[in-house]
Amino acid sequence: MIDKKYSLGIDIGGTNTVFGLIDGGGHIIKKDSILTNSNNPPRSLFEKIFNTIKKWEIELDNSDIVRDIGVGVPNGNYFTGMVVSPPNMGKDWDELNLCSLIKTFNNVPVSITNDANAAALGEKYYGVAKSMNDVVIITLGSGLGSGIIVNNNMVYGHDGFAGELGHLSIDPEGRECGCGRRGCLEMYVSAKGLDYTTREYRREYPDNKFLQSIDAQNVDGKLFDDAFDDGNKIVIDIYKYTGHMLGIGLAQIATILSPEAFVFYGGLSNAKHRILDSAKDSMNDSLLSFQKNKIKILLSELSDGEAGILGAACLNILRN
Amino acid sequence: MIDKKYSLGIDIGGTNTVFGLIDGGGHIIKKDSILTNSNNPPRSLFEKIFNTIKKWEIELDNSDIVRDIGVGVPNGNYFTGMVVSPPNMGKDWDELNLCSLIKTFNNVPVSITNDANAAALGEKYYGVAKSMNDVVIITLGSGLGSGIIVNNNMVYGHDGFAGELGHLSIDPEGRECGCGRRGCLEMYVSAKGLDYTTREYRREYPDNKFLQSIDAQNVDGKLFDDAFDDGNKIVIDIYKYTGHMLGIGLAQIATILSPEAFVFYGGLSNAKHRILDSAKDSMNDSLLSFQKNKIKILLSELSDGEAGILGAACLNILRN
Repeated sequence: MIDKKYSLGIDIGGTNTVFGLIDGGGHIIKKDSILTNSNNPPRSLFEKIFNTIKKWEIELDNSDIVRDIGVGVPNGNYFTGMVVSPPNMGKDWDELNLCSLIKTFNNVPVSITNDANAAALGEKYYGVAKSMNDVVIITLGSGLGSGIIVNNNMVYGHDGFAGELGHLSIDPEGRECGCGRRGCLEMYVSAKGLDYTTREYRREYPDNKFLQSIDAQNVDGKLFDDAFDDGNKIVIDIYKYTGHMLGIGLAQIATILSPEAFVFYGGLSNAKHRILDSAKDSMNDSLLSFQKNKIKILLSELSDGEAGILGAACLNILRN
Repeated sequence: MIDKKYSLGIDIGGTNTVFGLIDGGGHIIKKDSILTNSNNPPRSLFEKIFNTIKKWEIELDNSDIVRDIGVGVPNGNYFTGMVVSPPNMGKDWDELNLCSLIKTFNNVPVSITNDANAAALGEKYYGVAKSMNDVVIITLGSGLGSGIIVNNNMVYGHDGFAGELGHLSIDPEGRECGCGRRGCLEMYVSAKGLDYTTREYRREYPDNKFLQSIDAQNVDGKLFDDAFDDGNKIVIDIYKYTGHMLGIGLAQIATILSPEAFVFYGGLSNAKHRILDSAKDSMNDSLLSFQKNKIKILLSELSDGEAGILGAACLNILRN
């Protein structure tokens, strides 16, 4: 009897790393989550992961279970296998040849890409984007990440750096971004952007009790969602503004790519229609006449943390 | 002996229509140019074209010379075969099923796309973009058109309307565009945009003799190029501004697609380095750090009017 082999999908985030064994049909056979602790040497993260794999091999009575390894990691480059200047990660992750490092643990085919691309592939192969050839998948997390599918394939660009939609400038005079430019989409539409907007509102309405009562360095999305549902005018306004700015960015992207849909996932996407309805209106307002009311705005239906490992697990199959 | 067959490439413009017979190696066997006269019924244009084909068949002693037909036409849709609301064309060209019309003349495979996409395919298969998998081709004509190649394929989007880079907004408070939006790239970077900028300068410098001496409804590019070379400060400024705005747009596109190069052709691209040098500087200023100084700015090397028919001639081969 030939032992069954699986793809190991790893989704490395600034805080948590999720990994799992995935079969060819996209079923997650085993899955675990550990802290990334990115200030420790990267090697120590993989020691933990491969110790768990050994445990799984014993449980499944299968001594050589990994066919290939795919990794989504901030600023991971599909072409070079390198991680360069990943935001919110320790310094040992900069200029790291991640493919080489992983191969010292298990010398099977290894591919990496950035975390947003991995999640996009998960949506494309196992999520709501399954039947779509042209679709843009957007993570609304602490920042705004994205993966773009065109003609049924991932868009990497000539150097692996395509799809930086968080840094699309929607206003040349807009908010200053950490990247050194102004008006980047993620300065408006992300947890960071929501905090920024909330602080602006707080300065504008110094007597508003609700605004003074909350932590505007780190807005609690659930609290905002509830306030929105209770008819809190300030929160309705803040969400409307956030959606409005998102819609402007989506229209820019649609002018270039005309995708069938934008698919959203990540923390801030839990606000759902509260942000996305106004995003849709503002996108349609800003689109060329023949594109209006044709592009879908969808929410991911995959479980939290699964898109990334599912997509990462596809990377080697797609390369071949 | 089997008669040789060729692809008929047709490039329909608001003023002129160029067409030619092209072999599998991209050699133009026969070529002609006629007035489009778009206020006449579209059928009359094709009567002229197919009369010329008959003449060519006699000259080449080959009675059935056309293998397939590809057409580049403003607002031509690759998926539907329809032309919808083409700018600067007569009303009979709106909502026109062009594929069906052409098949009444010759029932071979017919494909259409918009004129900018056709020219982009010409550059991709026979021009400076030949070796590139990811490249954006931009026409600087009366407007700004574009064709995008990603992963070696044309980007049509889900509905054939991708690549409208002329309508990428680079300033939400910017110049009003005929499309109903503000700050569209072509309102700055095209013959139309150059006229607009020149009129703004004329209002700002009412005593400038050079500015008062020229026709700012229809700027003569050659005159401006010569003035630039003679050190005319106003023209140098106008071109610098034009290039600056172009660079901002290119950076937006690069943030999304990270192409290997931008390739320029069309009337205003004859200004060459006079505009493109400042475009390059402004693009690099606006790019993310890891993209700076890596993306090429190139000029088309194909003869005037050839990119369109060469690319149109590829359409059916690519479809199969």
